Amino acid sequence: MRKRPLILVTNDDGITAPGIRTLISVMNEIGDVVVVAPDSPQSGMGHAVTIDDTLYCKKITIDKGPQEEYQSSGTPADCVKLAVSEILGRRPDLCVSGINHGSNSSINVIYSGTMSAAVEAGVEGIPAIGFSLLDYSWNADFEPLKEYIEKITRNVLENGLPDGVVLNVNFPKSTTFEGIKVCRQARANWVEEFDKRTNPQGKVYYWLTGEFTNMDKGEDTDEWALAHNYISLVPVQFDLTAHYFIQKLNNWNL
Amino acid sequence: MRKRPLILVTNDDGITAPGIRTLISVMNEIGDVVVVAPDSPQSGMGHAVTIDDTLYCKKITIDKGPQEEYQSSGTPADCVKLAVSEILGRRPDLCVSGINHGSNSSINVIYSGTMSAAVEAGVEGIPAIGFSLLDYSWNADFEPLKEYIEKITRNVLENGLPDGVVLNVNFPKSTTFEGIKVCRQARANWVEEFDKRTNPQGKVYYWLTGEFTNMDKGEDTDEWALAHNYISLVPVQFDLTAHYFIQKLNNWNL
Repeated sequence: MRKRPLILVTNDDGITAPGIRTLISVMNEIGDVVVVAPDSPQSGMGHAVTIDDTLYCKKITIDKGPQEEYQSSGTPADCVKLAVSEILGRRPDLCVSGINHGSNSSINVIYSGTMSAAVEAGVEGIPAIGFSLLDYSWNADFEPLKEYIEKITRNVLENGLPDGVVLNVNFPKSTTFEGIKVCRQARANWVEEFDKRTNPQGKVYYWLTGEFTNMDKGEDTDEWALAHNYISLVPVQFDLTAHYFIQKLNNWNL
Repeated sequence: MRKRPLILVTNDDGITAPGIRTLISVMNEIGDVVVVAPDSPQSGMGHAVTIDDTLYCKKITIDKGPQEEYQSSGTPADCVKLAVSEILGRRPDLCVSGINHGSNSSINVIYSGTMSAAVEAGVEGIPAIGFSLLDYSWNADFEPLKEYIEKITRNVLENGLPDGVVLNVNFPKSTTFEGIKVCRQARANWVEEFDKRTNPQGKVYYWLTGEFTNMDKGEDTDEWALAHNYISLVPVQFDLTAHYFIQKLNNWNL
């Protein structure tokens, strides 16, 4: 790619989160950056879109970088839609989302606002990558991630991605890494435990908690890679059809 | 299955929606029914879960049916988690979600609260089906769907579903159907058009609108089936890995 690519940056932790500020600084080295991100945290929003409410979006300045920035009242998926349709005037060459404060590996991909932005971009035909760090701390150290983010991003710009595929990149909580490992999504889930409480008015309410359970012993999974200090890279598709099961279904008595 | 199965019913249009009331009436013929559904509409919520807010859930009576019912302040995915972990005391034999007032075919599956409930159940190892009708009207006629819903449900209870697969069933807006067709998810998307307005205080805001665009000419897709008055049935998986692309990624310079 000769001329500088146009890069859309978004996230789900909100536009002031240290994770997205790091991602913006890396992207400024690679292309012309426009940021369209939520004005408040949107973690756990999955692929939510705002259809029954109004959306606000305004230009703001957060630091002295060359990027252009907009904050929106919408979800991460809304931000991508707004950017493409109202702000950029053309399809960007790349969309990056993150760096998420917390894991989006294995089954977390389906709950992830970070990945929903990447998937939304993919649906619209834009090459896209979601980046996440396995550290929920607001003050996590994102510095060691920068060189890997740049390397993966330049690979995507150079090689492209097939239609219908985006990348899900997760970093272990570490300062040095064994390298980047291409993986499949581990078969894992959350075993919920609700914390049941009573409010001052006597009304019962719950907090969602739970324990992450990896049932997958494979050494080709993202969970294995992360547990062994590798950066995991999973190609993610949004054709959810379980093609292998179609023939069997055709034998049902329907 | 000899004894009556335990069936969890949920949706994303809210517990009083005519779609879920129809679904409950069908399920009462098949098994013992427990309803855990949102207290207000949750359309477009994707796979959102409530992690930064409290969840309410209370037992209610809506009609004279034999089912037990609970309404929750949470999303459809929250409802499934609450049901399994706090209300049922055991894993149900089946989870059905819907009947959604509106389409969840093709790419709509990723925005769908209805399907997120089915997927959440699938993640927890429960056979699950999402049902939707291509009619957004609150007063849509759900009556002609009943026999097909019963047939599909009895097939799932009898044959089971493979680990990691749930069903996405969509009905065309019609009173008679050509039959049930097993399909793949069509490659389609929404081309957004935001309706930009100014509020009385002079602040710009947007409404999300858009036009659905089917780019897929295949006759094996859900869109084709629905356009030809068939009921579409797509097996949906939540391992999002694009397995076919892993080998190519391993040739990248990472």
